[in-house]
Amino acid sequence: MSAVQLLEERIEKDGKVFPGNILKVDAFLNHQMDVALLNEIGKEIKRLFSSCDINKILTIEASGIAIACITAQYFDCPVLFAKKTKTKNIANEVYKTQVKSFTHGTTYDVIVSKDFLSKDDKVLIVDDFLAEGNALLGLIDLCKQAGAEVCGCAIAIEKGFQPGSQRVRELGIRVESLAVVESMEGGEVRFR
Amino acid sequence: MSAVQLLEERIEKDGKVFPGNILKVDAFLNHQMDVALLNEIGKEIKRLFSSCDINKILTIEASGIAIACITAQYFDCPVLFAKKTKTKNIANEVYKTQVKSFTHGTTYDVIVSKDFLSKDDKVLIVDDFLAEGNALLGLIDLCKQAGAEVCGCAIAIEKGFQPGSQRVRELGIRVESLAVVESMEGGEVRFR
Repeated sequence: MSAVQLLEERIEKDGKVFPGNILKVDAFLNHQMDVALLNEIGKEIKRLFSSCDINKILTIEASGIAIACITAQYFDCPVLFAKKTKTKNIANEVYKTQVKSFTHGTTYDVIVSKDFLSKDDKVLIVDDFLAEGNALLGLIDLCKQAGAEVCGCAIAIEKGFQPGSQRVRELGIRVESLAVVESMEGGEVRFR
Repeated sequence: MSAVQLLEERIEKDGKVFPGNILKVDAFLNHQMDVALLNEIGKEIKRLFSSCDINKILTIEASGIAIACITAQYFDCPVLFAKKTKTKNIANEVYKTQVKSFTHGTTYDVIVSKDFLSKDDKVLIVDDFLAEGNALLGLIDLCKQAGAEVCGCAIAIEKGFQPGSQRVRELGIRVESLAVVESMEGGEVRFR
């Protein structure tokens, strides 16, 4: 069975739909994590981006870290995760952008150290979820500030009825989502 | 070379010591992450806990997620990560505890969903860092609330001159730290 089929079946089995177009997949993707499923997803992302000379995977804390790290094993490259607030552990030398959270309704600063993102990097952005696209746009902005090349974005689950993927593609950036949810009407998840 | 040697060499090469006993390892462990090194760490954790019948790895966001997920591949079990705030995506049915952050000087709520931690679980707690032990004690408390058995704690880097490991061992819980930093005087890292 393909990674897409495995993921879609798992969403149908263990995903939960809540009011406000919230799809909860915390049984296997972003609270409890099925690492075997993440491996299938990582393999498929490698297949999709095998022609790209990627040397870094960029994601955002917290739930993107799992899929990014498992996927990085197939690219043999390090992972960099953007942090949602400025902490004492981070020096002043950071790239910073702002991201609005669809889930939480708040805006927060997102940073990466300038030490770890540069014009020499060919970056694959990896995240678990794509809805409004705000996190991706923030990560793309960090890459732009660093002069790094964004080779594309790889997403586990996209809510296809929200504009995120379109907003990213309008920048000329490739987006590959494994499972695209077309609708969740009546609590039933339908895929594109 | 053993995982411990690899990790110690990497700390000597890329770790940075800052005032206030802060050891910054964000070049390879908790901002940018060397997944190949994490794999060596994961293999060693499996070796140390191979006699234990572990069915779940528990960690805390954000930087613990990487090492937990890579390690989980060797145990063939899911990862559960504790979240630092209560979000809309989490229902009310959570176990909750409080953790004081050594790095940030603040106290925050830490939660896991009751759906994913129970008396049937034999848990290995995995984290990147051990200093005061507050995060570990919080995770142990969550397991206690759930009735889950804590088989032990596996840590990449312990600051051996802080009381964390002792506090956990006093509860009768096994702690295995791969690299134990004995001192950082004069900015030079010495290992036990």
